[in-house]
Amino acid sequence: MELFYSREIAAGERVLDRQESGHCIKVLRHREGDTIHIVDGCGCLYRCRITKADPNATVFEVEETIEGYGAHPYHLTMAVAPPKNIDRFEWFCEKATETGVDVIVPIVGDYSERKVFKGDRCERIIISAAKQSHKGAIPSLAALTPVREFLMRDFAPGTQKYICYCSDVEGAQKIHIREALAAAPDSRDFVVMIGPEGDFSRDEISLALAHGWQLISLGDSRLRIETAALTATSAVYLSRV
Amino acid sequence: MELFYSREIAAGERVLDRQESGHCIKVLRHREGDTIHIVDGCGCLYRCRITKADPNATVFEVEETIEGYGAHPYHLTMAVAPPKNIDRFEWFCEKATETGVDVIVPIVGDYSERKVFKGDRCERIIISAAKQSHKGAIPSLAALTPVREFLMRDFAPGTQKYICYCSDVEGAQKIHIREALAAAPDSRDFVVMIGPEGDFSRDEISLALAHGWQLISLGDSRLRIETAALTATSAVYLSRV
Repeated sequence: MELFYSREIAAGERVLDRQESGHCIKVLRHREGDTIHIVDGCGCLYRCRITKADPNATVFEVEETIEGYGAHPYHLTMAVAPPKNIDRFEWFCEKATETGVDVIVPIVGDYSERKVFKGDRCERIIISAAKQSHKGAIPSLAALTPVREFLMRDFAPGTQKYICYCSDVEGAQKIHIREALAAAPDSRDFVVMIGPEGDFSRDEISLALAHGWQLISLGDSRLRIETAALTATSAVYLSRV
Repeated sequence: MELFYSREIAAGERVLDRQESGHCIKVLRHREGDTIHIVDGCGCLYRCRITKADPNATVFEVEETIEGYGAHPYHLTMAVAPPKNIDRFEWFCEKATETGVDVIVPIVGDYSERKVFKGDRCERIIISAAKQSHKGAIPSLAALTPVREFLMRDFAPGTQKYICYCSDVEGAQKIHIREALAAAPDSRDFVVMIGPEGDFSRDEISLALAHGWQLISLGDSRLRIETAALTATSAVYLSRV
């Protein structure tokens, strides 16, 4: 089953945009009267019938609305420092979307190699991954955010805030993400921070500890940024579904 | 710390091959007397001193041998049906190597889209991923193997044999890989099978059940082959380290 995407459908819009219309009519050769399925990117799937098979502006009517389509039973924000090679970050965005993530926040810290980030390509990759893996909700991609600003941000009460750090910190407890997840069996809200190749700075970690972040480890393997980020995403996914 | 690779070092060979020599002398500009680190691909790290800085055949002597370098506390064989787009399988090989896998077996089943597989590029990707993630042991890549042949293979006593299957099978119990791993806390040997886009055939699943394979699920997300394979690899890794 092919999914189309229209963020405006929830607001009453009944026309597919040019790109989706072209794909629907020119590529998939849908005709008037055909049933198609559209997601709004916010969790709803709409079963629709084409009333005007226009390759530039396909018109449809909604026959059924299914909420929480392809939803996962947790809310996960992944804050990750994009590596120099942006393909690796785009790859993480695709795989995390398939697995189950809600918000992706590219972060820039003291030891970041990459200080600029353009999200357009990532946005497209996330949307197509969400459609391909049949998710009604499309993860949102935030703008590049300074690590310090993110560390001091307020999250929903009960949110588990994990920060991956390779070194040990005197006087601070660091636990395996598996243990952290097991220690909070009823939690459904998670935020995980993954730093750059050079990791977070000591100052950033001190700020994290001062703001109630839990230091976590992902085990002994030396993982690239994007692999660590997906491993953490999988850890949350595997522990909650 | 840069790692070099010489499978022959364990057999007494004290010369780097042309490619590694060129990288060592031309790219990294090492000189006679420099200390370099070499892995044998079987788990050992060797601290060596260059005695002849030849860009075609660098000669060295071994000063220290460290066993079990970068080892993980389990043995995992991943048998995965390579997708049409081979890049996705190569990506899995790289990420699984970083995370911790021992044997990768490309398999071909009743519903496989890809019936041929050339391993040369994968081999190189696995070696560079192992060096990059500081693993003394380099995962082995098997030749393309028929699913039925693999299903009937004998493994070390106590090996947990998991086969991922999307549908339910009447009379057969399917459990989440997390529960399967939790139910075998002392197991250290695992084999996981991931089928093609079209999944395994009913005949293949019947054969699997007849040969003691445990049906497992990876949760509700619709994962691509390579994402499912890495998720299973991460599940084993996260449960044992």
